[in-house]
Amino acid sequence: MVQLYDDERLDYLLADESMQIIQSPTAFAFSLDAVLLADFASIPLKRGTILDLCTGNGVIPLLLSRRTVATITGVEIQERIFNMAERNIELNGLNDQLQVIHGDLKEMQAVIGQSSFDVVTCNPPYFQTPSANEYNHNEYLTIARHEIYCTLDDVVKACKLHVRPGGKVAMVHRPGRLVDIINAFRQYRIEPKRLQLIYPKKGKEANMLLIEGIRDGKADLKILPPLYIYNEDGTYTNEAKEIIYGRK
Amino acid sequence: MVQLYDDERLDYLLADESMQIIQSPTAFAFSLDAVLLADFASIPLKRGTILDLCTGNGVIPLLLSRRTVATITGVEIQERIFNMAERNIELNGLNDQLQVIHGDLKEMQAVIGQSSFDVVTCNPPYFQTPSANEYNHNEYLTIARHEIYCTLDDVVKACKLHVRPGGKVAMVHRPGRLVDIINAFRQYRIEPKRLQLIYPKKGKEANMLLIEGIRDGKADLKILPPLYIYNEDGTYTNEAKEIIYGRK
Repeated sequence: MVQLYDDERLDYLLADESMQIIQSPTAFAFSLDAVLLADFASIPLKRGTILDLCTGNGVIPLLLSRRTVATITGVEIQERIFNMAERNIELNGLNDQLQVIHGDLKEMQAVIGQSSFDVVTCNPPYFQTPSANEYNHNEYLTIARHEIYCTLDDVVKACKLHVRPGGKVAMVHRPGRLVDIINAFRQYRIEPKRLQLIYPKKGKEANMLLIEGIRDGKADLKILPPLYIYNEDGTYTNEAKEIIYGRK
Repeated sequence: MVQLYDDERLDYLLADESMQIIQSPTAFAFSLDAVLLADFASIPLKRGTILDLCTGNGVIPLLLSRRTVATITGVEIQERIFNMAERNIELNGLNDQLQVIHGDLKEMQAVIGQSSFDVVTCNPPYFQTPSANEYNHNEYLTIARHEIYCTLDDVVKACKLHVRPGGKVAMVHRPGRLVDIINAFRQYRIEPKRLQLIYPKKGKEANMLLIEGIRDGKADLKILPPLYIYNEDGTYTNEAKEIIYGRK
């Protein structure tokens, strides 16, 4: 039996109830963004290594473990949330495939070397941090959502450092930052190859984007069909359901 | 009566038959791209000045003249096509509002100064020019479609040179060049503010993009709802029809 602390709770990760995940409304609970990224990322299926930066409670490694036997390493800077990720790996019996490192993504070279992963995924903090009064009052959530400990530039730089040449980097972010993302990808020679825009429903502006690049890749971006999350009546679209409730 | 040369023909520009345009299958015929750009671009309606680079037979100035009383200047490098644009202005009685300049967009400063237009539009050549045997056999079409006389960088540089600070630059291009476009926009301080992806039909990758930036603007890109051109049965979607056949 797994130990739960404070306001932590145990949720099912997907509708088939095959995996559970420790969440906390005040420390870390995964969002649709992580689920979409885990579905979007191109990953090796039979072997290889995957790195997930800003891993939080390990939701992306857990989801990816359903698609691949590659080993997956998460990095999380907040100790309490790192600890949740460790228990999530234990809880799901995935110690042989998944590991999580407590540390700063800017300082991982000493721990995991460089240019060694086939794929790097990241659901980074979305918001630039203009002034302290705009922070979330909760410190855990503030760090997860705002660029306190790492900027977008730090994140892309770390992706570049750890992915092998020809390896892939996949990220979820907000449309308002697409220009910054594309600039940072180019700066660090991660050539954007696939872009998908997520729309809450028809007729609305995109509110999320998924982007994948290849280190040292050749310029040729493909823009995938858009993904709508909700129907007009507020229910999930069939496409969204397949991703959220699991394809398997 | 307007003079037609060689294989030129007179087409209606929109379904309401209010405007005509001289086209030539071997020299220049406008495409859906130009129609979409003319609809997408944010333009001043009551006054102001608009510049259309790579104007071809003047299709974009002609279409824009239906939406605004602003004066519109086109620039076209190919003399034969410039001449078609001149006759198109004459043909539609738009000499007071529209003018076209025969020249190279890289050398327009001496003719039209700098930083003077409220809006610059451009439907540039899409294709980089890897080798001569990939060119279109027709020289007119090759120049219109390939980066022979101007690269994307030349185009964005000219947009920046001629738009006023705070003015808008709107362009149509291919998704494969989005990364290059965004990089060039940033390099020349035209901040991308609106992006729309065009999909031939549901479930397909985007095959066209519309992008608008503001010179010296603040970073905050909005990604508009996608536009689908065809229904499953190959007929135009209602949205596409409205644009192609005219809203007025």
